[in-house]
Amino acid sequence: MTAPFSFELDATDGLARAGQFTTPHGVMNTPQFMPVGTLASVKALDPEDLHRLGATMILANAYHLRLRPGDEMIRTMGGLHRFMHWDGPILTDSGGFQVFSLEGLRTINEQGVEFRSHLDGSLQQFTPESVMRIERNLGADVIMQFDHVVPGQTEAGLARVAMERSIRWLERCRVEFDRLMREDPDAPTPVQALFPIVQGGIHADLRRESATAIRDAADWVGLGIGGLSVGEAKPDMYAMLDVVNEALPTDRPRYLMGVGFPEDLVEGVARGVDLFDCVAPTRMGRTGAFFTTTGRRSIKNAAWRLDPGPLDDECSCAACSRFSKAYIRHLFVSEEILGLRLLSLHNVHFLVALMRDARAAVQAGTFQGWSRDWLARYHSRSTSS
Amino acid sequence: MTAPFSFELDATDGLARAGQFTTPHGVMNTPQFMPVGTLASVKALDPEDLHRLGATMILANAYHLRLRPGDEMIRTMGGLHRFMHWDGPILTDSGGFQVFSLEGLRTINEQGVEFRSHLDGSLQQFTPESVMRIERNLGADVIMQFDHVVPGQTEAGLARVAMERSIRWLERCRVEFDRLMREDPDAPTPVQALFPIVQGGIHADLRRESATAIRDAADWVGLGIGGLSVGEAKPDMYAMLDVVNEALPTDRPRYLMGVGFPEDLVEGVARGVDLFDCVAPTRMGRTGAFFTTTGRRSIKNAAWRLDPGPLDDECSCAACSRFSKAYIRHLFVSEEILGLRLLSLHNVHFLVALMRDARAAVQAGTFQGWSRDWLARYHSRSTSS
Repeated sequence: MTAPFSFELDATDGLARAGQFTTPHGVMNTPQFMPVGTLASVKALDPEDLHRLGATMILANAYHLRLRPGDEMIRTMGGLHRFMHWDGPILTDSGGFQVFSLEGLRTINEQGVEFRSHLDGSLQQFTPESVMRIERNLGADVIMQFDHVVPGQTEAGLARVAMERSIRWLERCRVEFDRLMREDPDAPTPVQALFPIVQGGIHADLRRESATAIRDAADWVGLGIGGLSVGEAKPDMYAMLDVVNEALPTDRPRYLMGVGFPEDLVEGVARGVDLFDCVAPTRMGRTGAFFTTTGRRSIKNAAWRLDPGPLDDECSCAACSRFSKAYIRHLFVSEEILGLRLLSLHNVHFLVALMRDARAAVQAGTFQGWSRDWLARYHSRSTSS
Repeated sequence: MTAPFSFELDATDGLARAGQFTTPHGVMNTPQFMPVGTLASVKALDPEDLHRLGATMILANAYHLRLRPGDEMIRTMGGLHRFMHWDGPILTDSGGFQVFSLEGLRTINEQGVEFRSHLDGSLQQFTPESVMRIERNLGADVIMQFDHVVPGQTEAGLARVAMERSIRWLERCRVEFDRLMREDPDAPTPVQALFPIVQGGIHADLRRESATAIRDAADWVGLGIGGLSVGEAKPDMYAMLDVVNEALPTDRPRYLMGVGFPEDLVEGVARGVDLFDCVAPTRMGRTGAFFTTTGRRSIKNAAWRLDPGPLDDECSCAACSRFSKAYIRHLFVSEEILGLRLLSLHNVHFLVALMRDARAAVQAGTFQGWSRDWLARYHSRSTSS
């Protein structure tokens, strides 16, 4: 593995792992939840909020930042870390998911994807090469390959086409990435790591093929698992994780993209996942939903109108340590910005703390019992009321 | 003055004053700018932000809180301080301005004002007595009388009617306030201070009459000056302040309500004002406008697109010490909540710091020169670009 990147496993418990992932911008524990700052801001949160709740690595999105304010602009401003005042590790998603979510508005071929900007309708093209240049300009520590993403329930024929194309695009990404590392040493983060993305839909044979081909293609710093939590049923997602876990190297971090809810994180750790990201905690925060140890709730529920207690009795976040459900509900109903911030902050804290607890359980050799008890409690009253 | 309230003058310089105002929830320096938290939240800001930028006293609004979530509900939750987690001094405006701003939707008579809630259209009535009970329930340290407010340019006849009614309503407020202090000792803040409000439009004789009558009516802890910065020209506002300053006692804090912009604060201090409040800094923050030492600016200006500098070179707020104009502009254009928060935070910090500097100048005996230089700089490039 290329310095300054490294990955050490501190402990394993069954298939669950506790590790440390070192990047140019610092070391992080795994398993870890990474908050998503799509447009160079984790919505409604300040970098200080993130530091305080224990977040280490955050995400940004190359598709969105390319469109506005532009990757070259961000490079001019010194790169993402300086631009958004985050000195910890950053990962950029290539935008594959966003581009393929545009549906009828894009044309896919072997060269890449042509699409119209959702902002101003201008014609754009993403290729494996161009995305590598965008992600070089942004300067994240870890950059994701540009892949051909298909919806979770896609039938095997089309899933195979996308999976095989993603492997060919991975090679093009790798070549351009290596060239940029050699020829563009003045980039904001000179040494980056390119992660491949395992695809294959909900077809075990395709997933196995994808993971094996990718694993054999190069000595990756880490590997992404894509195309899950995009409409497929949870049992299918968990089954695919089982398949992929067997095929991927154990001495590299595994990153399950776009996942997820608390139960998905716990089930993911149980199946060998080390890194997660999802917009759910911040998006939910803006719609009034919040996590508790006994399931999801909505702050809009009239039951909370006079509730003096915190969002979650066991949470130590900056919202739960200071404000009542009654106050946060008042803020939300009154459309006060502080309400959105407190809910988002709590939700992100919840997931980061959950992974911290999972890690401790793996280190103590008690993960199986801990996860079973945690899931039972979480599902015990999981009405979203 | 009733303990725990007191007011000490540390220094004067011309008509400008530096003092200390003691309340049940702490001591504050004057002159001071008080951020407005209409609905029990200073929009987009966290109490921690306010503490950090040096705010001491904040406002909330009895009209808005009466309508939602209700003053009785807030009393049940322990009062405003506990509800919104602010342990410093709080002042509640009676809602006179809001009620009278409803225009055709309300009926005014000697008893009080009948109006329809802007939230759900329900019929409501505010009287001097009912407003005292609302403000008792909310539990602010300082509560404002319920007054008859008229627009700034109102002709003398109508201005006189409103001014004289406000004096009669002040007496009714005082009687009910005294009764509540005796008969409702379990209120969230047992010892409150009722401030009267000087009215009279832009008519010097009416202002003098109002100030004199109010001054002679009781030994007030402090006095409000209302009905200014509501559409009248600035020279008229300043002229009214000159008149009122002469008539009001010098050993009591004078609170100029709803003011204002940086230049108004400086001109107000020059004319004997000690306390200010205004929604401008937070409202402007949400429309992209921000204060600098050389005038107002808009973050939307394309000139800032690649600007690596802070909003204001001389500002030490949490926005200016960390983020570039380029980043904040990107946030604002992208409708990111953090952008609104950073702009609001900067603007409030700007006014609080301005009053801190004004106080220091008064103490040093250099207020006249300091204010003249400050105003000249502020107006030197005051295009709102």
